[in-house]
Amino acid sequence: MHVTVIGGGLIGASWAALFLAHGHRVCVHDVAPGVEARVRQELQRIQPFMAQLGLPLDPHSPALSFDGDLAGAVRQADVVQECGPERLAFKQSLWVSVESHCRPDALLLSSSSGITASMQSRKMASPQRMLVGHPFNPPHLIPLVEVVPGRRTSAEATERARQFYLALGKQAIVLRKEIPGFVANRIQAAVIRESVSLVRQGVVSVEDLDTAVQSSLGLRWACGGPFLSAHLGGGAGGIGAFFKQFAGGLQLLWLHMRLRPVLLTGGAQRALAQQIEQRYGAQSIDQWASRRDQQQIALLQALQRPSQSE
Amino acid sequence: MHVTVIGGGLIGASWAALFLAHGHRVCVHDVAPGVEARVRQELQRIQPFMAQLGLPLDPHSPALSFDGDLAGAVRQADVVQECGPERLAFKQSLWVSVESHCRPDALLLSSSSGITASMQSRKMASPQRMLVGHPFNPPHLIPLVEVVPGRRTSAEATERARQFYLALGKQAIVLRKEIPGFVANRIQAAVIRESVSLVRQGVVSVEDLDTAVQSSLGLRWACGGPFLSAHLGGGAGGIGAFFKQFAGGLQLLWLHMRLRPVLLTGGAQRALAQQIEQRYGAQSIDQWASRRDQQQIALLQALQRPSQSE
Repeated sequence: MHVTVIGGGLIGASWAALFLAHGHRVCVHDVAPGVEARVRQELQRIQPFMAQLGLPLDPHSPALSFDGDLAGAVRQADVVQECGPERLAFKQSLWVSVESHCRPDALLLSSSSGITASMQSRKMASPQRMLVGHPFNPPHLIPLVEVVPGRRTSAEATERARQFYLALGKQAIVLRKEIPGFVANRIQAAVIRESVSLVRQGVVSVEDLDTAVQSSLGLRWACGGPFLSAHLGGGAGGIGAFFKQFAGGLQLLWLHMRLRPVLLTGGAQRALAQQIEQRYGAQSIDQWASRRDQQQIALLQALQRPSQSE
Repeated sequence: MHVTVIGGGLIGASWAALFLAHGHRVCVHDVAPGVEARVRQELQRIQPFMAQLGLPLDPHSPALSFDGDLAGAVRQADVVQECGPERLAFKQSLWVSVESHCRPDALLLSSSSGITASMQSRKMASPQRMLVGHPFNPPHLIPLVEVVPGRRTSAEATERARQFYLALGKQAIVLRKEIPGFVANRIQAAVIRESVSLVRQGVVSVEDLDTAVQSSLGLRWACGGPFLSAHLGGGAGGIGAFFKQFAGGLQLLWLHMRLRPVLLTGGAQRALAQQIEQRYGAQSIDQWASRRDQQQIALLQALQRPSQSE
C-alpha cells in the first residue's frame, strides 16, 4: 500500500517506521525545513528497538520518500495518517486540501488525541472516509490504536481503518461514541488526578506513588484490564461476588475521593456482569487466574533481566 | 524469625508461602475446621509459580505449623501478620488478645485494605507496635506492600515493618497519612469508576475497554508510574513541558469526566516538578525513555511467549 504520513514529528516518524516495517510505501509530507534528516535520524534510533520485536526497518529504504508538496504527497495514497499540530483550523483546512488531491477511495486517518473526526471533517465534501486512528505513544511499540469514527464516517471506512491497524499488529478498538480523551486518555487522566491529589495531600511522595503503581496496578493491568481484574478479584464467584463484596466500598471510596459516584445499581451490575461473562466466561476463574499469575511472573522476570541495550 | 499468620484464607496462605520461602518459621492460626488441609493445598498450588521466581517452597516444610489456640500461636512470634475478616470489632478484640500473649517486642501487622491501624489498635495497651502492612493480591507474586502506621504507631515499628518487607523482596512504601483505600486501591477505584462509566455510556464494550488498558496504560505503568510517564510525556522538556502542554487539557478533561479538578496552579506544578526532578533528574530524559522502551519490548516479548505451564 501507499501510505502518506502528514507531519514529520515524533509520532509521524514512529508511524512511518511501523508502516515501512510492514512493507508499505511511505511518503512523509511536512513543510518544515530539515524534516527528512530528522525523520531518518529518528528511524535510525528506533531501528534496534523494532528489530527486537521482529520488525525489520531500513532507514534508507527506497520505499521511503519525502514530499513538501501536499498535492504530490497524497496523490497515490491508499491511506493518509495525519500527525500535524493539534489545531482545529489547521486540520479542517488540511482535509479540504487532501480530499481535493487524493484518490476518491483513499482512507483518511487522523492521529489526533483530542479533536474529533466530526469536528475535523466539517468542511469536507466527502467526510465519510475520514476518522481518527489515535495511537498510544510511541506507535511503533505500544499496541493500542483507538479507532474513532465521526458522525459522518461510514461504517465501511471504520472497518477498513480497523483492518489496516490490525494488519500492522496493533490492538485496534472501535469507539461507539466520540468523547473527549477517548478511552485511554480518560483513564490516564483519572489516575493522574488521584496521583497528584495524593502527593498534594502529603499522603505519599512522588517516588513512592510511582513505585506503588508500577509494582502493583501496572503489572496487573499489563496482564488484563480492569474488568478481568474485577472478575478475578471476586474469587471463585467471579464478577458477581466482586460486586457483592466491593460495590458498596467502592462507592464510599469514590465519595471520599470526591468523585461523583457512578451508581452501581443492581441493573448496572447485571449489565456489566453479562458482558464480562460473555467475554471471559468460556474459561473458568481458575484458568484465568493461573494465566494471570503466569503472565505476572513472566513480566517480573522480564523487568528483572538486564536489558539488551545495557 | 518466627512469623505468625492469623487467618488461613487465600491471603494468609500466600503470605505463609512467602515467609516460608524466605526461611522464616511460620505458624498459622485459624479456628476454622480443615484449615491445615486447605493451606497446604494452596501452598501446593502456589509452589510452581514461586519456583519460577527463584523462591523455593516446601508445602511439607517442618518450619510450618498450625495452632488453633491464639495464645500458643503468637507466644514465640517476632512478627504477627493478621489476615482475618474485615470487621473492626473482630480486629480490635483480636489485637487485645494478641498483645496479652505475645512477646513485648513482637511487631504486629495487619493486612487490612480498609481498616486503619488507628482504628484497629484503639483498645490496645501498646498500640505503638501495631500498623498496617497491606499487600496487593496475591502477596507471593505482587511486589507492593503499603506500610501504613496509625496515629500511635512508633517510627521504630514503622521502620521495622518496612525492613521486614524489603527483606522479603517486596516494594514497601510508607504512607504519611492514613487515608481510606490507601494509595493503590484509590487509584484502582478511580480507574474502575471511569471504566464502568465508559461502558455504561455506551462508548466502548467491556472487552474493548480491557484491551485498551492492557495494551497501553498497563504496559506503560508496569515500566514506570504516572509521574515518570508524565516526565517522559513532556519530551526533551520533561515534566515542565508536560504541564505546559497538558495541564489545561487535563483540567478540562477532569471537568468533562465530572471529576472535581485538582488545581494545577503554578505553585502546585512547581512542587510536583521539584519532587519529580529530585527522583528522576540524575538521568536524562533520553536515558529514561530508552529504558522504558527497552522494558516495554521485554514485556511485549514476555506476554507473547507461550507460558511455561501451557
